[in-house]
Amino acid sequence: MLKLDYKELIQSDRFLTLGGKRFHYIWLYDHCLCPRCYHPSSFQKINDLSDRLELPKPKSVQFQDEKLIIDWDEDPPHRSIFPRSWLLSRAYDPKPEPSLSPREKQLWDKAWLDANPPEWCEYGNCSFEFWMNQLSTLGFTLLRKMPWEKLETFVSSIGPIYYLAQYGRYSTVKAIPNGQDLSLSAAGNALSPHTDITFLPTPPIVQLLYCVENQASGGESTVVDGFRVAHDFRQDHPQYFEILTQTPVTFWQLYQDWDYYVSQTKPIIKLNDSEEVTNIFFSHKNLGLDLPFEQMESFYEAYYGFFRYLKKPAYEYCFRMQAGDCLLVHNFRIMHGRKAFDASSGSRHLETAYMDWNYFAGRQDFYQVKEMF
Amino acid sequence: MLKLDYKELIQSDRFLTLGGKRFHYIWLYDHCLCPRCYHPSSFQKINDLSDRLELPKPKSVQFQDEKLIIDWDEDPPHRSIFPRSWLLSRAYDPKPEPSLSPREKQLWDKAWLDANPPEWCEYGNCSFEFWMNQLSTLGFTLLRKMPWEKLETFVSSIGPIYYLAQYGRYSTVKAIPNGQDLSLSAAGNALSPHTDITFLPTPPIVQLLYCVENQASGGESTVVDGFRVAHDFRQDHPQYFEILTQTPVTFWQLYQDWDYYVSQTKPIIKLNDSEEVTNIFFSHKNLGLDLPFEQMESFYEAYYGFFRYLKKPAYEYCFRMQAGDCLLVHNFRIMHGRKAFDASSGSRHLETAYMDWNYFAGRQDFYQVKEMF
Repeated sequence: MLKLDYKELIQSDRFLTLGGKRFHYIWLYDHCLCPRCYHPSSFQKINDLSDRLELPKPKSVQFQDEKLIIDWDEDPPHRSIFPRSWLLSRAYDPKPEPSLSPREKQLWDKAWLDANPPEWCEYGNCSFEFWMNQLSTLGFTLLRKMPWEKLETFVSSIGPIYYLAQYGRYSTVKAIPNGQDLSLSAAGNALSPHTDITFLPTPPIVQLLYCVENQASGGESTVVDGFRVAHDFRQDHPQYFEILTQTPVTFWQLYQDWDYYVSQTKPIIKLNDSEEVTNIFFSHKNLGLDLPFEQMESFYEAYYGFFRYLKKPAYEYCFRMQAGDCLLVHNFRIMHGRKAFDASSGSRHLETAYMDWNYFAGRQDFYQVKEMF
Repeated sequence: MLKLDYKELIQSDRFLTLGGKRFHYIWLYDHCLCPRCYHPSSFQKINDLSDRLELPKPKSVQFQDEKLIIDWDEDPPHRSIFPRSWLLSRAYDPKPEPSLSPREKQLWDKAWLDANPPEWCEYGNCSFEFWMNQLSTLGFTLLRKMPWEKLETFVSSIGPIYYLAQYGRYSTVKAIPNGQDLSLSAAGNALSPHTDITFLPTPPIVQLLYCVENQASGGESTVVDGFRVAHDFRQDHPQYFEILTQTPVTFWQLYQDWDYYVSQTKPIIKLNDSEEVTNIFFSHKNLGLDLPFEQMESFYEAYYGFFRYLKKPAYEYCFRMQAGDCLLVHNFRIMHGRKAFDASSGSRHLETAYMDWNYFAGRQDFYQVKEMF
């Protein structure tokens, strides 16, 4: 806990020390909260120091009434006042703790879910915190008994939709002739586990899949925790894992109806600087391989090795979507798919939308940080 | 040019050679165009090999009537037929040339634009290719005399809008009380050069700025080629440049009205694996610094060094937007800003929207590749 007491105020050449924490003058000047420097409703900085050649210097510094007050050596006079609580939440000596709690992830497979069966929410009868916590930790959640006419209310309560090509707010997943995507094929084919929109550089996406009707035989939905699969695959086949993190491949989509060819070249498994898996890009139907001859076979070995893992029943959570079910899936972590269905046996009708993950998370984060402003 | 002649067909253990180009059997099998393996309207792959433990083997291979025909050693029988032109455009031995031409960039400063003054399009009197080429090479373009009632037609002809928070398709840039962003401030303050939405992980964005009315004194628009500035800064201050590519900083935005706090931590200058600049993230008003005490001053030196470059008149293209002007800016390359204006002197009203760069590029690319399908 940062204690600020004027008795503990020490001035140095380029910084001051208050309650044992050092603050550079340049940082304090840059964060000045006076109306000339700081916009009171957006909390954004107006001033910038790039026109100056010299560092700002204080003429006097004092701490009183729980406030640090600095009069800068400037003409016209310029005074900065920092409330104690404001400084407290922004101290950087040493590097501050992140102001947001990290989001814990629970990697899962079928056995884990069997041992820890999640309780699914009923729409209108469950808090944002509850299902959002599932979505954060498991990478997916299921809201049940959501009336179709409430879907738009629900979506709008979270945030904007990420529009995919010329589809509207929602796109309809139904067996149709000449679909622009295999998921719409009139054949009712199975879809192996995949992530969506791998062919575009999108923001992190939550895919929403709402079931309007499901009378067809077959067509069960599946989800797989790609991070869990990647974790196990890395242990068992480190060389294959490395190939999938190091080899850029091309995901592409041709939208004939709309005159677009979109493509993205990137490795299937993306790591961050700490070598942790942050994204899985996997969509067999959209995969193009433009590798040199010498890499082709070893890539296929690694690729099909991983694909076999993805399809292991031990990883699969399989369930039948009922009318009113709304599945939210953290795309690029969780892979989803479906079993084949008989399109002639009855209607299977889903509506899908893509929502920007940042607005789910941004809502959670807002409640954490709002006191800082 | 790939010549395919059946006389040149050579079979090996794991691949065949046709016209001097090698194709692996696994690759050919994976790309089988038969109706069981390949979806005829989306051109997506249906089959996958992950259920097999053995590599596919051909029973017979022939080249006739400009087609490669493979009967696979399978029960039930399975035949793949590849047209010559299809193979030609996808040969990978050696690694193929990219099927899409690279987009050339022309880095510019004021002197370059003075020497090569761009001709701006008039809406309805200019081809997609013309202004799109400007947008690709210079990073921005200006469409003039676009009637306000045509703005939506224009936007819809390109692609979907990327929705920012709870704004609608457009957000209005006007001086208003208590704006959620400094750009809306009733004070009509200047905005130094910046990129937009640095606080979210978005797709590559084209910012559209449409001028409805501009009667205010002041408020000239500015654009700066961030890639050109970065290029020069790198030459002159390699250590500062390195700090800006290596130090993650936090861009944040608080949307009080909508209960969001969104933030992104990343370096200001992003390089690709070849050390080329691919993105500039720069928005002083949204910048938060949570660096350790020891890094703070050297970061500020590098940051303000770069900021001073960005503001040099030698880089600035400055112009006054007139009613009907529509500015398109490749965000994350081109920085934009405005001079201060006197909000009491007349109305200054812009409408802004964010469009996904992929749909501009995807249209260009479609015309290049459509013959391949």
